[in-house]
Amino acid sequence: MSITVHPFDQAVKLDLQADGAWRGHTDPAYGNMVGPFGGITSAVLLNAILKDPARIGDPISLTVNFAGPIEDGPFSIEATAVRTNRSTQHWSVNLYQHNGELATSASAVFAIRRETWESTELAFPVRTPALELKRADTSKAPEWTRRYDLRPHKGLMIDGQLQESEPNAETEFWVQDDPPRPLDFLSLTSICDSFVPRIFVRRQGRFPAGTITLTTHFHADAEMLSSQGSKHVLGLARASKFGMGYHDQSAEIWSDQQQLLATSHQLVYFKA
Amino acid sequence: MSITVHPFDQAVKLDLQADGAWRGHTDPAYGNMVGPFGGITSAVLLNAILKDPARIGDPISLTVNFAGPIEDGPFSIEATAVRTNRSTQHWSVNLYQHNGELATSASAVFAIRRETWESTELAFPVRTPALELKRADTSKAPEWTRRYDLRPHKGLMIDGQLQESEPNAETEFWVQDDPPRPLDFLSLTSICDSFVPRIFVRRQGRFPAGTITLTTHFHADAEMLSSQGSKHVLGLARASKFGMGYHDQSAEIWSDQQQLLATSHQLVYFKA
Repeated sequence: MSITVHPFDQAVKLDLQADGAWRGHTDPAYGNMVGPFGGITSAVLLNAILKDPARIGDPISLTVNFAGPIEDGPFSIEATAVRTNRSTQHWSVNLYQHNGELATSASAVFAIRRETWESTELAFPVRTPALELKRADTSKAPEWTRRYDLRPHKGLMIDGQLQESEPNAETEFWVQDDPPRPLDFLSLTSICDSFVPRIFVRRQGRFPAGTITLTTHFHADAEMLSSQGSKHVLGLARASKFGMGYHDQSAEIWSDQQQLLATSHQLVYFKA
Repeated sequence: MSITVHPFDQAVKLDLQADGAWRGHTDPAYGNMVGPFGGITSAVLLNAILKDPARIGDPISLTVNFAGPIEDGPFSIEATAVRTNRSTQHWSVNLYQHNGELATSASAVFAIRRETWESTELAFPVRTPALELKRADTSKAPEWTRRYDLRPHKGLMIDGQLQESEPNAETEFWVQDDPPRPLDFLSLTSICDSFVPRIFVRRQGRFPAGTITLTTHFHADAEMLSSQGSKHVLGLARASKFGMGYHDQSAEIWSDQQQLLATSHQLVYFKA
């Protein structure tokens, strides 16, 4: 008898060390052009908080700063609750490699949610259902793209074959873990970064590019994520400004039940 | 002969201590309902980096986590360059009060800018020029609002007199330091937070609310800010989701020359 571990859970796996730090290892299944996919790095940093017995509530915000390259191999993560209030908790999380060199740093806010007035100010972007669209061929793209079932409406730009006459910086797709996995805060974090750099889409080509800072705002609680199960979620990404070496990217992730699950905002280094 | 210090410069003033930390003091001129205005706190945290001789480049990103209340009085700030690369530098900044209790923590990314392809993906929102609009009466609003010349198009909601039949969560205004002060990274940081909480605007009333985390992305370099001088900049703010105790806010700050200077994204605690 064998128990199969989902590749996502394998990639975010952490073991507690005697000194209180967590030990993890990059996973080739989520490899990018160089080093690991930023989404999986964000998820493993969040996991260090989720696994901490001192943690209260659910994540509402996570900012990850990609301070230096992460090399394939082991890493250690230190997560510290820097302040705990009655219903909120602030965390500092650092990922180290080799002789304690900082590769990635993050901060997070957790909160115990409570019922309040609710409103979604954005209209749900009604699109063709995921299963009526064709899955993208990512066979020539980095390994991590094959951990997702991506069904694009527009602007995926992973295979160099997209040729639009007036390209903008927008991508719209349905996305699902492959194999399917029930949505949780870890996979939602990773999915928020599952868009190619906006410069690829806007300029219709590949350029040197990499995320330097990524902030995710969670609008869902655990119950809302649970009700989504393992179905595709809808992802939209756009940019507001390219210039002087960096561009931004804002993304929305929607459930198929028209709930806004998360928004994220990042800055990306690029050469073009 | 007396040299007049601008109130903004007085509020972000820092003195280096023997132990390498910075000493500052809250300023009643930028007081909020309780404690200081979040924009001035963000600016003083950034100032600790700008004043550091080890700093390279200009800010491209700043995330401020409001971990606990800041009381009126002195505070100390510790700014640490956690990683310095060839053209980027990552910072961790903490603000303490009393016996070393953490009140605010921040991270920032600085970069040496270089010329690349440029594009602004958002259309400049053409609006009536600032000087053709009436200045808002903020006499009943918190003290910090009187440090700004605010000329609203819509959704200011600071005096309880706004009554729109179908309110949305959007605010549009021209904003300028009062007295006028040449724009720099410090004042731009503060201006990014110069919008009232979106819940006030969306629900047309005052509610308990406060920013818990605020990320600013800078799209301007020092030269672009300098060319703006002390003229009004255009600010737009909106929300995407209210619910379960928190709402988000995204803002754009534009120069009067149609340049996107900064975008910012925050989460706000609210009761309604």
